[in-house]
Amino acid sequence: MLPDQIKTAIEQLSKLPGIGPKSAERLVFYLFQRDDSHVKDLANALSNLKEGIVYCERCCNLSESTLCGVCESPGRDQNTVCIVENPMDVFVLESTGAYKGLYHVLHGAISPLDGIGPEQLTVHQLNQRFEKEEIEEIVLATNPTVTGEATAVYISRQLNPRSIRITHLAQGLPMGGQLEFADPDTLKRAIQGRREV
Amino acid sequence: MLPDQIKTAIEQLSKLPGIGPKSAERLVFYLFQRDDSHVKDLANALSNLKEGIVYCERCCNLSESTLCGVCESPGRDQNTVCIVENPMDVFVLESTGAYKGLYHVLHGAISPLDGIGPEQLTVHQLNQRFEKEEIEEIVLATNPTVTGEATAVYISRQLNPRSIRITHLAQGLPMGGQLEFADPDTLKRAIQGRREV
Repeated sequence: MLPDQIKTAIEQLSKLPGIGPKSAERLVFYLFQRDDSHVKDLANALSNLKEGIVYCERCCNLSESTLCGVCESPGRDQNTVCIVENPMDVFVLESTGAYKGLYHVLHGAISPLDGIGPEQLTVHQLNQRFEKEEIEEIVLATNPTVTGEATAVYISRQLNPRSIRITHLAQGLPMGGQLEFADPDTLKRAIQGRREV
Repeated sequence: MLPDQIKTAIEQLSKLPGIGPKSAERLVFYLFQRDDSHVKDLANALSNLKEGIVYCERCCNLSESTLCGVCESPGRDQNTVCIVENPMDVFVLESTGAYKGLYHVLHGAISPLDGIGPEQLTVHQLNQRFEKEEIEEIVLATNPTVTGEATAVYISRQLNPRSIRITHLAQGLPMGGQLEFADPDTLKRAIQGRREV
């Protein structure tokens, strides 16, 4: 019943995470009612998304030049490296303004079931950084999931022989949350990690 | 911190209904990790969305030719016209397979507060159809909202002088719903519209 290009657009949009066929239909009919320029702007933005973006030579984050904004900035603490899974994690950590060191983006987490080992991540580049740079502290900021924790354990074990301080983001109650709704695992971490007032 | 094209893509996606800045970020980073071809397919689908699509001369539905699929089909009941607000409504009604007549797409609902009167809708084209076609029944299928109901009332009043059967989609309990969770208005309609078993 629907014209082909509308069907194609619905199909393409429903491939995105969190957008089912119903939402895709809604979006397409919404776009249809918008100005042509609005729709073209969106299409162009997506089409140009990857244009001219490379991985930072040093930290493997997304970048427009050889070195990314963080690595290029002279004000950052050059001796601390925060290990994250994805470029988005750098973005959210930067938005806190609480971290002043460098990053290293692994581009994933170790997950043997999905065939992802250290070779598929940027662990090799991380090891090279240890040879070249004077790193004093590693902040493990992988996700608090099974694969993220496994990756953190792998990296900390690998670094153990070196005299580097290894820290891990604190785990416990999220701000604004309520004790009664916290899951047992989170509460367990909150008790184990309790701090002197 | 983010490269410009990533910022632009996030901005453009977060303009869509139901997609906030956080979801837009997620989508963009998801697309970034996909193949180039996948992203280009999506961008092309959106860019071509409106290409070659016109309004059906008869029912004002979206169409690839002068007449839409429904209007062209010889098997449809030519004497019944279902009035809907949007092309998407035609799509969902067709997916039921329960309606065999024609449609008329108003492209909106009467809403004086938003400056939308009958002149902004395809009411003029509907009146022309009454001159030319032998319409015996009008099925009002506007949304069960204030503006949708107002539009239905407007159209039925306008048609009153003619000897046309005017029906309205049944209102009552949705299938799979539970009585205890139905809102008072829906229950009221269900009681008023009760039928002999």
